[in-house]
Amino acid sequence: MKILEVKTGKPYKILIEGGLLTEVPEDLKKLNLGYRYALISDSQVAELLGEDLLCLLKEAGLSAELFIFPAGEASKNMDTVVSLAREMIRAGFDRKCAVIALGGGVTGDLAGFLASIYLRGVPYVQIPTSLLAQVDSSVGGKTGVDLPEGKNLLGTFYQPWRVYIDYGVLSTLPFEHLKNGLAEVAKYGCISSPELFEFLEQNSQKLLNYDAESLEHIIYESCRIKAEVVSRDEKEGGLRRILNFGHTLGHAIEAAANYQILHGLCVSIGMVAAALLSEKLGVAEEKISPRLVKLLEALGLPTRIPQELETEEILSFLRADKKVWKGKLIFVLLKKLGIPVFYEEPPKELLKEIVEELKAK
Amino acid sequence: MKILEVKTGKPYKILIEGGLLTEVPEDLKKLNLGYRYALISDSQVAELLGEDLLCLLKEAGLSAELFIFPAGEASKNMDTVVSLAREMIRAGFDRKCAVIALGGGVTGDLAGFLASIYLRGVPYVQIPTSLLAQVDSSVGGKTGVDLPEGKNLLGTFYQPWRVYIDYGVLSTLPFEHLKNGLAEVAKYGCISSPELFEFLEQNSQKLLNYDAESLEHIIYESCRIKAEVVSRDEKEGGLRRILNFGHTLGHAIEAAANYQILHGLCVSIGMVAAALLSEKLGVAEEKISPRLVKLLEALGLPTRIPQELETEEILSFLRADKKVWKGKLIFVLLKKLGIPVFYEEPPKELLKEIVEELKAK
Ligand SMILES: NC(=O)c1ccc[n+]([C@@H]2O[C@H](COP(=O)([O-])OP(=O)(O)OC[C@H]3O[C@@H](n4cnc5c(N)ncnc54)[C@H](O)[C@@H]3O)[C@@H](O)[C@H]2O)c1
Ligand SMILES: NC(=O)c1ccc[n+]([C@@H]2O[C@H](COP(=O)([O-])OP(=O)(O)OC[C@H]3O[C@@H](n4cnc5c(N)ncnc54)[C@H](O)[C@@H]3O)[C@@H](O)[C@H]2O)c1
Repeated sequence: MKILEVKTGKPYKILIEGGLLTEVPEDLKKLNLGYRYALISDSQVAELLGEDLLCLLKEAGLSAELFIFPAGEASKNMDTVVSLAREMIRAGFDRKCAVIALGGGVTGDLAGFLASIYLRGVPYVQIPTSLLAQVDSSVGGKTGVDLPEGKNLLGTFYQPWRVYIDYGVLSTLPFEHLKNGLAEVAKYGCISSPELFEFLEQNSQKLLNYDAESLEHIIYESCRIKAEVVSRDEKEGGLRRILNFGHTLGHAIEAAANYQILHGLCVSIGMVAAALLSEKLGVAEEKISPRLVKLLEALGLPTRIPQELETEEILSFLRADKKVWKGKLIFVLLKKLGIPVFYEEPPKELLKEIVEELKAK
Repeated sequence: MKILEVKTGKPYKILIEGGLLTEVPEDLKKLNLGYRYALISDSQVAELLGEDLLCLLKEAGLSAELFIFPAGEASKNMDTVVSLAREMIRAGFDRKCAVIALGGGVTGDLAGFLASIYLRGVPYVQIPTSLLAQVDSSVGGKTGVDLPEGKNLLGTFYQPWRVYIDYGVLSTLPFEHLKNGLAEVAKYGCISSPELFEFLEQNSQKLLNYDAESLEHIIYESCRIKAEVVSRDEKEGGLRRILNFGHTLGHAIEAAANYQILHGLCVSIGMVAAALLSEKLGVAEEKISPRLVKLLEALGLPTRIPQELETEEILSFLRADKKVWKGKLIFVLLKKLGIPVFYEEPPKELLKEIVEELKAK
């Protein structure tokens, strides 16, 4: 088993191992977070893994109950939080209970948020089951829900008490969602680890074939990098924002596409844009975009903006992004692979130029 | 001006003065919590004070906008939080903004909760305008909303950056709400200050006539006591629960009455019940209930349970109360005035006996 530690205000461990799911109940007993567990999953994961985990928990003598919500980003809203909370209250869950988030990023964000506000906060653990959740969303304590006006607009910083990563469960993950996660891994390579970037280049085929050993490596490296960044900046005061590499334009594309394109795929395009921006602004000390585009293509990820999206709409979403600080739009750019820098207010015309360039055939 | 300090993780000051409202803008400038303020008020307070404060803020050169929700406990739910948040987002409020909660406990709990989750948390200050809010809810950082299943079931611990108490604004507070706040003041006397208890006994008439000097004294003393308790136990791990004196049965009565009786009035009855329980269990070293009943009556507060409430319903709400810890019902009782003790699981029959005694003519 591989173990990482996130050194936030309340530190916690990330455990990584194939087949880890079966070891969760015994570890939970040691952690002793509560006398009763609310296991929260979306409809899809509940069917694939939820009932099994529930059995494991009960066999180990733990009191647990499964709460299910419909799979998909559309569920990540306050109505779902309220209806899960009401079910838990009616089932008698009190302050001495704990929450288990079993699922992808939607489940993690939603269940983490719920745990943070349920009776003003109960402990929770993350069991991420999508690649995106395993390499990104389950670590760092950002929880939240969407509003019609935008994603993740309401939420908390609320660190989990443990993160259990069983990469074995990825075998059932749809291919699109595998790629979705790989985009975030490429991001870690860009902002922090040329070695990881190279590993992706050399193992793209294996990864696209769900090779367990390769997956383990990239999950460990991704979590290591994210844990380090989060340990140094728990509440996104500064450094943590390097994790937004590719996300600024990525989010705008996601919004302009009405969330019909997966997040990681948008981030993929956003990373290309950020690399181009780095080059055009003279921030980059070497050409990055060709190598990046090649890697993303090898990972089956998009590198161009769909033609049907309106340039002006993308640009307007860019300004609405909550990464606008005191009215300033801040991009994460690259000096070179592994060396990110913040850049304030790149010229509007340049952003437009890049969007149009990425839209052209 | 009187100043108190609450020594929580993030310490903050409570400022108490008649006419303080006019000094808020200059103080906010010094605090420098954000470059833009969302002033949140209920419909009633917005009309009485909201527009005035908005003007004061703008005259002082601060950017502010007023967000209004319908007055009343019925608004204290997630729908209101979501609709206020959406309005703020649409008005362009970003992470560098701050929230001002201007109003009673409903506004404070709601706006504080909103501030704690808006873009994962923005600073907020409390300007309590009801007596209950000035002596209780604005201090201590408990925020939250109700669910159909019960009050305050979702929320956070999120301390304000400042509490501004202007007792001058109480002049327009409806009489019932004045009494509502006085019940909580009597509570502080019971659990912590025989002197305050005596002051109430000697000044009940003045207080019921909104006498400013007497109000200032009881507000200061109440905040002093609450600040001390909260400083020692920010997240209600133990000690803080002494503030629940009178609330255990009080909440059950409130729920059984379908929230048609004001909170403080229910707490008033609950305190009498707790005093009787203390005596019957032999916890009290002296008779407390006769003196307590006399004071509460002098303050125009109820001391008996309305006949139409079902005993069994009250008792069942008692068990559902979230103060049931690991399945245990914990009461705050009194050894004598000013000396509270926790008592686990008083006999069910005794509780029933007291409820019936308090219902009898
Ligand atoms: N908190 C953070 O720091 C953070 C970071 C990045 C993304 N996010 C959030 O994460 C969310 C996206 O996460 P996601 O992509 O995991 O979405 P998701 O949770 O919706 O999962 C994607 C789909 O895969 C299914 N699934 C998950 N695990 C599976 C498995 N093992 N086998 C088969 N199917 C499986 C799910 O049921 C769902 O249909 C977004 O809401 C995003 O905002 C949060
Ligand atoms: N957070 C805590 O620690 C805590 C503690 C106790 C109670 N509470 C909460 O506080 C709430 C009750 O507070 P409340 O009694 O202040 O209710 P409230 O906020 O509804 O105010 C009562 C009424 O008085 C009006 N009002 C307020 N100030 C006024 C003024 N100066 N002049 C004229 N009218 C005025 C309001 O518009 C409202 O109609 C409950 O929701 C309760 O759960 C919270």
